[in-house]
Amino acid sequence: MPNFYSQKLKKEVVLRDPVHEYIHIEDQVILDILKTKEFQRMRRIKQLGPISYVFPGATHTRFEHNLGVYELTRRICNIFAKKYPSQRSGDGLWDDNNRLLVECAGLLHDIGHGPYSHTFEHLFGTNHEKIGQKIITDPNTEINQVLRSVSPNFPALVASVIAKTYPNPQVVKMISSQADADRMDYLQRDAYFTGVTYGKFDLSRILQEIRPYNEGICFTMAGMHAVEDYIVSRYQMYQQVYFHRVGRSMEVILQHLLERAKIIYQQGNLPVTPSLAKFLANDWTLDDYLKLDDGVMETNFSMWTKVSDPILADLTKRYLFRQPLASICIDQETKNLLPKLKDLIKQAGFDPNYYTDTNSAFDEPYDAYKPSGKNANSQIEIMQDDGQLIELSQLSPLVRSLNGTLQGDERFFFPKIMMSNSDEPQIFDPLYQKFQRYVKNGALRYIRKPKK
Amino acid sequence: MPNFYSQKLKKEVVLRDPVHEYIHIEDQVILDILKTKEFQRMRRIKQLGPISYVFPGATHTRFEHNLGVYELTRRICNIFAKKYPSQRSGDGLWDDNNRLLVECAGLLHDIGHGPYSHTFEHLFGTNHEKIGQKIITDPNTEINQVLRSVSPNFPALVASVIAKTYPNPQVVKMISSQADADRMDYLQRDAYFTGVTYGKFDLSRILQEIRPYNEGICFTMAGMHAVEDYIVSRYQMYQQVYFHRVGRSMEVILQHLLERAKIIYQQGNLPVTPSLAKFLANDWTLDDYLKLDDGVMETNFSMWTKVSDPILADLTKRYLFRQPLASICIDQETKNLLPKLKDLIKQAGFDPNYYTDTNSAFDEPYDAYKPSGKNANSQIEIMQDDGQLIELSQLSPLVRSLNGTLQGDERFFFPKIMMSNSDEPQIFDPLYQKFQRYVKNGALRYIRKPKK
Amino acid sequence: MPNFYSQKLKKEVVLRDPVHEYIHIEDQVILDILKTKEFQRMRRIKQLGPISYVFPGATHTRFEHNLGVYELTRRICNIFAKKYPSQRSGDGLWDDNNRLLVECAGLLHDIGHGPYSHTFEHLFGTNHEKIGQKIITDPNTEINQVLRSVSPNFPALVASVIAKTYPNPQVVKMISSQADADRMDYLQRDAYFTGVTYGKFDLSRILQEIRPYNEGICFTMAGMHAVEDYIVSRYQMYQQVYFHRVGRSMEVILQHLLERAKIIYQQGNLPVTPSLAKFLANDWTLDDYLKLDDGVMETNFSMWTKVSDPILADLTKRYLFRQPLASICIDQETKNLLPKLKDLIKQAGFDPNYYTDTNSAFDEPYDAYKPSGKNANSQIEIMQDDGQLIELSQLSPLVRSLNGTLQGDERFFFPKIMMSNSDEPQIFDPLYQKFQRYVKNGALRYIRKPKK
Amino acid sequence: MPNFYSQKLKKEVVLRDPVHEYIHIEDQVILDILKTKEFQRMRRIKQLGPISYVFPGATHTRFEHNLGVYELTRRICNIFAKKYPSQRSGDGLWDDNNRLLVECAGLLHDIGHGPYSHTFEHLFGTNHEKIGQKIITDPNTEINQVLRSVSPNFPALVASVIAKTYPNPQVVKMISSQADADRMDYLQRDAYFTGVTYGKFDLSRILQEIRPYNEGICFTMAGMHAVEDYIVSRYQMYQQVYFHRVGRSMEVILQHLLERAKIIYQQGNLPVTPSLAKFLANDWTLDDYLKLDDGVMETNFSMWTKVSDPILADLTKRYLFRQPLASICIDQETKNLLPKLKDLIKQAGFDPNYYTDTNSAFDEPYDAYKPSGKNANSQIEIMQDDGQLIELSQLSPLVRSLNGTLQGDERFFFPKIMMSNSDEPQIFDPLYQKFQRYVKNGALRYIRKPKK
Repeated sequence: MPNFYSQKLKKEVVLRDPVHEYIHIEDQVILDILKTKEFQRMRRIKQLGPISYVFPGATHTRFEHNLGVYELTRRICNIFAKKYPSQRSGDGLWDDNNRLLVECAGLLHDIGHGPYSHTFEHLFGTNHEKIGQKIITDPNTEINQVLRSVSPNFPALVASVIAKTYPNPQVVKMISSQADADRMDYLQRDAYFTGVTYGKFDLSRILQEIRPYNEGICFTMAGMHAVEDYIVSRYQMYQQVYFHRVGRSMEVILQHLLERAKIIYQQGNLPVTPSLAKFLANDWTLDDYLKLDDGVMETNFSMWTKVSDPILADLTKRYLFRQPLASICIDQETKNLLPKLKDLIKQAGFDPNYYTDTNSAFDEPYDAYKPSGKNANSQIEIMQDDGQLIELSQLSPLVRSLNGTLQGDERFFFPKIMMSNSDEPQIFDPLYQKFQRYVKNGALRYIRKPKK
Repeated sequence: MPNFYSQKLKKEVVLRDPVHEYIHIEDQVILDILKTKEFQRMRRIKQLGPISYVFPGATHTRFEHNLGVYELTRRICNIFAKKYPSQRSGDGLWDDNNRLLVECAGLLHDIGHGPYSHTFEHLFGTNHEKIGQKIITDPNTEINQVLRSVSPNFPALVASVIAKTYPNPQVVKMISSQADADRMDYLQRDAYFTGVTYGKFDLSRILQEIRPYNEGICFTMAGMHAVEDYIVSRYQMYQQVYFHRVGRSMEVILQHLLERAKIIYQQGNLPVTPSLAKFLANDWTLDDYLKLDDGVMETNFSMWTKVSDPILADLTKRYLFRQPLASICIDQETKNLLPKLKDLIKQAGFDPNYYTDTNSAFDEPYDAYKPSGKNANSQIEIMQDDGQLIELSQLSPLVRSLNGTLQGDERFFFPKIMMSNSDEPQIFDPLYQKFQRYVKNGALRYIRKPKK
Repeated sequence: MPNFYSQKLKKEVVLRDPVHEYIHIEDQVILDILKTKEFQRMRRIKQLGPISYVFPGATHTRFEHNLGVYELTRRICNIFAKKYPSQRSGDGLWDDNNRLLVECAGLLHDIGHGPYSHTFEHLFGTNHEKIGQKIITDPNTEINQVLRSVSPNFPALVASVIAKTYPNPQVVKMISSQADADRMDYLQRDAYFTGVTYGKFDLSRILQEIRPYNEGICFTMAGMHAVEDYIVSRYQMYQQVYFHRVGRSMEVILQHLLERAKIIYQQGNLPVTPSLAKFLANDWTLDDYLKLDDGVMETNFSMWTKVSDPILADLTKRYLFRQPLASICIDQETKNLLPKLKDLIKQAGFDPNYYTDTNSAFDEPYDAYKPSGKNANSQIEIMQDDGQLIELSQLSPLVRSLNGTLQGDERFFFPKIMMSNSDEPQIFDPLYQKFQRYVKNGALRYIRKPKK
Repeated sequence: MPNFYSQKLKKEVVLRDPVHEYIHIEDQVILDILKTKEFQRMRRIKQLGPISYVFPGATHTRFEHNLGVYELTRRICNIFAKKYPSQRSGDGLWDDNNRLLVECAGLLHDIGHGPYSHTFEHLFGTNHEKIGQKIITDPNTEINQVLRSVSPNFPALVASVIAKTYPNPQVVKMISSQADADRMDYLQRDAYFTGVTYGKFDLSRILQEIRPYNEGICFTMAGMHAVEDYIVSRYQMYQQVYFHRVGRSMEVILQHLLERAKIIYQQGNLPVTPSLAKFLANDWTLDDYLKLDDGVMETNFSMWTKVSDPILADLTKRYLFRQPLASICIDQETKNLLPKLKDLIKQAGFDPNYYTDTNSAFDEPYDAYKPSGKNANSQIEIMQDDGQLIELSQLSPLVRSLNGTLQGDERFFFPKIMMSNSDEPQIFDPLYQKFQRYVKNGALRYIRKPKK
């Protein structure tokens, strides 16, 4: 393969980063990507969206995360180039000609994200992966222009690494696998900014023991426990942070307020900034998408707190001023009780379509092998002294216990007042008490008929 | 004094905080303040404004800082109540009846801040201190309503603590002095989020050695070096973070773009959200002020990138996409050269009114005594074994070296292209070269006449 | 129960501790225990013994660990006294009259340890638990004298807490259970000094969610994941640190050198300090035991490097100058090959009795319930909102995967030279090569007969 | 210069280190030095000696510090080789042929230290620098043997780097200057193990900005504040840790007990291990020196607690069981009162020769220039953009305030009981009270005559 043209900076540029100490930029191309408007936009999109309502420190943005993934990619390339340089094609070692390519892919792997990606995609049919590909390959973007300066097909190559179609599996898996630079950065970063300690794993040991092989990237036996710990950290972060019930509650509110806004907009009564209007009208372009960010969304919400529609006004206030819904755990069996609960909620004056919801949050902390699907073959391999590979869950009882399982819960969300228990009698008290009989230890339950 | 009515929560509420581990909320009143819209608004105002352009991690907001000051205040009250409880009026020890008052003052001391406070105040005549007082005392705010639940005069008392007119100096100085909960929180917090280490001082030691006395708050001799280190940390944070030349450059751009926007608005051609419009029209209310936040500002800037006025469009792009001005140090003498430089800049096609500026950034790291002014008497005292007080700079050579001095620099900002030195010849190269002869080691200098 | 007489110090004494920031001493009794010669002796006994040969930072001593356990005990008492004060006997809440008792038990729970306890007990029939009880209850010790100043039966009560016979299960389990102050301190401390990160769990969250109940100490549901993480940390520390193959190798050498020394001593030819001589002669008193520490042992070893017995001289050099044996994993099946290996080792000139050994290192990371044995009933309980208790492994898949299992390995230790593979031919090369055919990927294996 | 023969290890060896994460060993020679008995001896000599009596965590040894200095040296070589490789002799850049030499010098710079070096040198006329030179150059040591494997003159070259006579100033100053690898390691390390935060400076920034120049090593302007902070950290560590009054008190006891032991030994009545006996008899060899370590010393002290001489027995108990002397500040003027104080102490039953002492602890935190003496020319230089050097104190007001000053104090040490103030009357109370009249706020003072 060709060595891409990369003008080295006369003096490296460093950015201070609380997670990796410094981000080192050595190439003009990397620096130029940072300066594009599409990349700078990432500064205005929080990495964890509404989770900052639960962990106030979690105001960090996709900008820093992207830089962090780039930096880890760069460090892994350094390690591979020093310890495992390829001597000849097919020796399963690292060909450092891929460096600029994988660094750019690391930097741009999340470039398609907009504000509240998950909710947004659900409602407006956007797709951050496709949009990311477009930002990289569309000749009208500044990022494309910078990438083209390397070589005409460089944008397409970067896009193929992110799309996992690039032929070299080491390059692809450095960005996308069950132990990739993306996950390693976001776990450490989200742990740092939320202030929880669960996401801290032994990154320095992992980087000490990471190595390339024919099919991608693996770890030496001496790093097994560090990788095991990383899988456990990932599990913990999902259970403790990403799936936090209050964060999910805020997301439920967000989704309902946008649904309501769509309806009110179509009725012709909604103050809205031009870029968001295009989405409410189902008629948007990449340019519109690139104008959205957290601030634009919240600016619209702020205007909507004054609209005449009481549901929209109330939901936006709940979102902006952090008034989450309450929630309880449900399961396949207790789900059957939800109509009864919704009925009580309706009697208490809330439209169940907007004020209740169910929400599943499950993650597969690790998967040894899934023969089909996009994660195929991304299992984590541990290399023995003689070069033999053993899949991680064969070595670790902890990973084995998580392997292929779904961890998380399903919840029913509803107005907090249903759980109220005031000293002063209120009109709906009997309703509330009836509701509360269905709740025990944070979960929905069947009520036993009182014995005669 | 009366013991304010404070309903204790049945179960304390804790918020995870990366700086103080947990924020503990024990009172209904504190929890209710958090829920007000005026307080939640703080989530949308970055603590360090444009400095996040220099230190990407610095996305933390005034919300967390306010919580942090509250938490430090709470901990200091705990320490004082345990170790130094007042037995009788005038004994110079701590009367814990002031606890709720000082905790509320800590929580609300910055409530008047809006987006880019410094720049904003300069341009629109707002004043965050006065606005803060109003938010607390105006019966129309939610915060006032919560505070009134304690007692009718409680809002006024909280306001008086922040305004430093409350009679008990221990209460006032816990919030406002040269070693107060405000500074202790922001130094630690800004250090954590920027990732620089300079702001880290030995908070646990300081809290071990802090104590009340008749005139306010002091530290025992065993804590002298920890307090000394705190003063040095403060100096370092100013020099390294708050006065960073790139952060100031972004602030210069911000100011000029708002100035320009005011003019264009008055010409009737500016798309602008209603709340900001009121400021551009010099006709705003508290309600308008409370609608502003970073996102609203940036949403407006984003719209302005497309306006026909080339200066405004260019400045907003520079701000949103981080294209700082360059800068050099100047002093009283070299300042005289600025007209020449501005002339070259003008010849290169830039309006000096919008593309150049001078900016002073100086801080007094510590001041032993200023008999007048608002800082009077806030010098830091160290208590000897026998109760005698010695002012800090008498004990520390480091503090003495900073005492009463102004540390910082004055800079001239201008378009970066003036310093360009391209391989490919450009039309303005002779101009640029002429300009660059005035610059050496990052400072403006007189050019020596070449000898004949 | 009586409130023990405890003279509070006029001013609390604090000790700087890198793990808990400060150790706070508020009682004269605690301070007086610290000053006894039996307690000061702990300064000279490393917490992790030969593991410092693997992790050079692990030079911390039992002195600091004992202080750390005391401090955690003190903090848990503070939390219990504030949040869960007993109102009447039998309400399952915390009776703070037990504070001084449990603090002393925490401080003294390991007081019976001597140098290399495990190896020592094996060889000389000492028993650190019995010796600890004796140090506390024997009227001739300084510690006993200090404890008696509280009340005549106080030493016996402290001893009973450590022996788990004290009737209040909250008091006992604070010191001895699967989630006690002892384990919480040593995991954090050993992690800090070794520099591995695995031992770091979320102590501040655990202390936030710990609570007393009738049968002992449990955790609220909100702390489940923090406790789960603590169990995983414990597992990791065992696998990564406590069971490190090189640490165990040094322990094997230590044991063999002491065995050899016993024989040589009985032959009358060994220079030895008086205190250790008593042990080699199987005739020691408590006073002799209290004179031993790491330095005394090493001083003896140093003298033994010059003795005429080549085995003892060599083993002590190996120990003092860190020349570990090599090792490989074995299992029930491959064990049968050991005689063959030992034979090769013997042919290479090493006495297998002194230069080989097998060593098992297995730990049960967590055990839900063992109806008999000393750990009975110490399973970790998680309290639901309604007070119901659920055993931890019912809630956590990770803990379930470890529950009741033994994690670790069994190893065969032998001279490293057997694995040598020199460029220059050596006399024993054929022997070494024969030996090495039995080793693959760090484990013993059967050699397949070459096919004809 | 020749490129020294250095066999690279097939696989680098890493040692976990809590301060630098990992120590990386890439050369057979470095690994072989570690394995020598002279180097392993360092494991048994605490880095901070009696200071561990004040900061219990400070049990770290010279072994780890030596490894740390080596590792910093290695990293600086990496940085220099990448960023500033010499192209031709005399260009002021880095010649990486010096790498192995400077790494060995870093590893061995403290090899001559024994237990309690300072006190020991004072009493027995040892000199750790000379002994270190001897260990490196004496053909009988294992270290010399390893070094000779590189080249016959390699030991002499390593010794010359440590002795600062090697001609390349970059090599010398990497080990010995006011900002060298030695100081950078011990400040960070001592801070980590004591648990104080003052010693933490921004090492990653300093390594980002360090660079070679013709006369040695300097820092770029962007690193000025980090270097300034390092100087302040150094000052703080001296004031807070190295000069701690209790640590010095233990050192005073140590010195007096050894003085007393010398006398008693000469009287023929002292149990003593052979190696130490040689020093008490003033007739020792290098081999005797290498047999000493902390444990040997304490083993002797332990035996001495039972000798018949009451002074020696008492002093060793005070040392082993941490019973420090009290102390007060003195100055040139108040010193005149010491005879009166000593007289009171004598009346109270203590021999002032053994139970009192004066001790000065002063350090020069930074010195811009001393034209003579061993520190000549080691001032810290900051390089401007154009290559001009400016001495640090010209740029930093903090460093200027410390420049050339002596910071510390002089103290008088005496038995603590002189300050006692018991509730129960004691026989010497009038003496004690008389003594205490001379003490105020921890300092000696003249007593004002009572007015008539």
